[in-house]
Amino acid sequence: MSILSYRSRYAMNPLHEGDDLASELEGAGKRLIKVNIGDPARYFKTPRYVIDAYVKALKDGHTNYSSPYGIPELREAVAERYRRMYNVDANSDDVIVTQGVSEALVFLNASLIDWEDKAVIFRPYYTQYAPDLMLFGGRPIMERYREEIEWGIMTDDLERHVKADISESRKKPKYLIITNPNNPTGTVLPARILREIVDIANNYGMLLVSDEIYDEIVYNGARFTSVSQIADGVPHLILNGASKDFDATGFRLGLALLPGEDKASVELKEQFRRFATIRLSCNTPAEYALAEGLSRHAEHERAVGRMVREIADRANFAAKLINESEYMHAVAPKGAFYIFPKLHMNRLKLRDDRDFAMRLLDEEGVQLTRGSGFGEPGHIRLVVLPEKKVLELAIEKINRFCKRHSK
Amino acid sequence: MSILSYRSRYAMNPLHEGDDLASELEGAGKRLIKVNIGDPARYFKTPRYVIDAYVKALKDGHTNYSSPYGIPELREAVAERYRRMYNVDANSDDVIVTQGVSEALVFLNASLIDWEDKAVIFRPYYTQYAPDLMLFGGRPIMERYREEIEWGIMTDDLERHVKADISESRKKPKYLIITNPNNPTGTVLPARILREIVDIANNYGMLLVSDEIYDEIVYNGARFTSVSQIADGVPHLILNGASKDFDATGFRLGLALLPGEDKASVELKEQFRRFATIRLSCNTPAEYALAEGLSRHAEHERAVGRMVREIADRANFAAKLINESEYMHAVAPKGAFYIFPKLHMNRLKLRDDRDFAMRLLDEEGVQLTRGSGFGEPGHIRLVVLPEKKVLELAIEKINRFCKRHSK
Repeated sequence: MSILSYRSRYAMNPLHEGDDLASELEGAGKRLIKVNIGDPARYFKTPRYVIDAYVKALKDGHTNYSSPYGIPELREAVAERYRRMYNVDANSDDVIVTQGVSEALVFLNASLIDWEDKAVIFRPYYTQYAPDLMLFGGRPIMERYREEIEWGIMTDDLERHVKADISESRKKPKYLIITNPNNPTGTVLPARILREIVDIANNYGMLLVSDEIYDEIVYNGARFTSVSQIADGVPHLILNGASKDFDATGFRLGLALLPGEDKASVELKEQFRRFATIRLSCNTPAEYALAEGLSRHAEHERAVGRMVREIADRANFAAKLINESEYMHAVAPKGAFYIFPKLHMNRLKLRDDRDFAMRLLDEEGVQLTRGSGFGEPGHIRLVVLPEKKVLELAIEKINRFCKRHSK
Repeated sequence: MSILSYRSRYAMNPLHEGDDLASELEGAGKRLIKVNIGDPARYFKTPRYVIDAYVKALKDGHTNYSSPYGIPELREAVAERYRRMYNVDANSDDVIVTQGVSEALVFLNASLIDWEDKAVIFRPYYTQYAPDLMLFGGRPIMERYREEIEWGIMTDDLERHVKADISESRKKPKYLIITNPNNPTGTVLPARILREIVDIANNYGMLLVSDEIYDEIVYNGARFTSVSQIADGVPHLILNGASKDFDATGFRLGLALLPGEDKASVELKEQFRRFATIRLSCNTPAEYALAEGLSRHAEHERAVGRMVREIADRANFAAKLINESEYMHAVAPKGAFYIFPKLHMNRLKLRDDRDFAMRLLDEEGVQLTRGSGFGEPGHIRLVVLPEKKVLELAIEKINRFCKRHSK
């Protein structure tokens, strides 16, 4: 008999499931192309002025526990960002700093979910959403981003499903979570659809959670709208962090913004604060670095602008090559830094996308993530951060692999 | 109706419950003495060579996600430490780096605890043990450290209670957790008692968890024994971290060591690794700093030696003053950096230790933690890290406060 809990079976992350094989291959001297982890700090340097602020914090002796909610300088800088960029009536008390968005998701589920409570998740989803919910005994109402409308959302379907679920289970879903810009699809949701989602959240009493960690990584003419701009009194939680816009994944700093003055927002903010006290503090010197990162607008604009131009170029390059392949096709991304091709599985002698990903790693040394890990079988996710010559080689290898396994 | 989950009521940390009042008082210009948070980095500088390594990691560009389990250099340095200091047959695969011991405790409970599962906790306990267990639906079998035997453990009682609980509930407790050296009491458990606890864990099939984060902060002739030295094949988990021995609380790095080759240890190690992948990574540059901290033995010995001599001096000074008071008495600590006096509540016109702590803060500006926050009413916990003149002033103020409220 296993000592493990029943809940523990939900702990998994498909991003890492090729790691053991990858280590083995590398141990045998093979060079791999890894397009499985969305880690910009491997490809673009974290801006110099942010690193300098980090070093200064260390030299100034900021190595003690800081406020559980985040240092005041950082929380104020975040509130100021939302006032400036999205015209949100936010102040520093509305901000709680977390150990990555990952920790904010744990706080969210621990705060709201008891056994058999539900939440609305859209697939393909960020890999952590479903496991975190289920670890706390929750169950997803699984909605879909639709590939046929460029991974958009059919709000009529959403409303119908939520309504049906409530009338069957006599219980409202606790929250609805979207990722915008999206990981893994690269979609940027239009304001019109976001407004309809806000209305649905409002009508059915669900907290609206918008994971906006890629909010500045938008290109190809797309226009990003933050839920905080349009929520208009409807309870909402915005998630963001240092990792993507500030190219600092290794800092492990997430940001939870709860600007609402309604009862649900106030209760949840208090609850997030209680969870924050349990683990005492985030990494203190990193908080000083991010506070500086957020405060020096001109430097930030330059750094993120440069990065986004480069990402757009690489994403478009990858999309073009992928759509020339006879084995897959993809919606070109407009945000974030992933591409999520659909495999033409009917042309391949491979069992499924998991089989595809593991054998591709083994045979061609390309590590990517299976779509079923995001709840969307028959797809694969590639990170488009590497240089174009690396992306080209990766896609060449994928095509060669497909040809070898074609029917 | 509240949107919050039932479980969320367990999220609290008594260490922080005076914070709102403290902010208010400071806002009004009052200077406070804070002896509520055990944060050595506020009183002793994090060693220079550790800071230098941290700065170097930042300048070398280590700001990306690192391995979810911890960078190999750090995991190997931890394994080497346990081989060298405690003669444990450990290797780097036995080590998982966590975001503070706090996160390791979440992994522990998420890995083992389903609804109504039990674990053995000793009160007074580290404030996080009970809430974390209960957040996952678990229930404590609450044992006691006994003040009358210098906060030691009566192993006969322990065995009798565990046996009785199993025969009543027909279910074994999942784990038993001890803190050694202890927070809040400062006790260092003798090897003989630890061996008896190992036997009990073995006889009743419980994982033995030993939180040894203060393992180098031992004084007054006490001798520390690690469970890893004596576990002898019995499944055990050792918790440690950067915060205390390396005086680096703000790094947020914990260490989980699972050296066993038995089935339970191997399963739990795999499960901890899965939990680690969900949140991707710890703070990467801090990991490089701690790896260096652990590797440069001579520098570390000097730094920790200096700190422990100073802590012992302050602890003994505080114990002497407290035991001269007519309103409280305390067992002199031999490890960690806390003192846990028993209040003579029968001499005071105060409701309880919570009333004591909040009014003391309000009236005298001394912030400490109520004993009931550790499961032990009628006591208070003071951190003995401040300089002696500050400790003296704090205790003077406590005495003055007691006199004013005496019967």
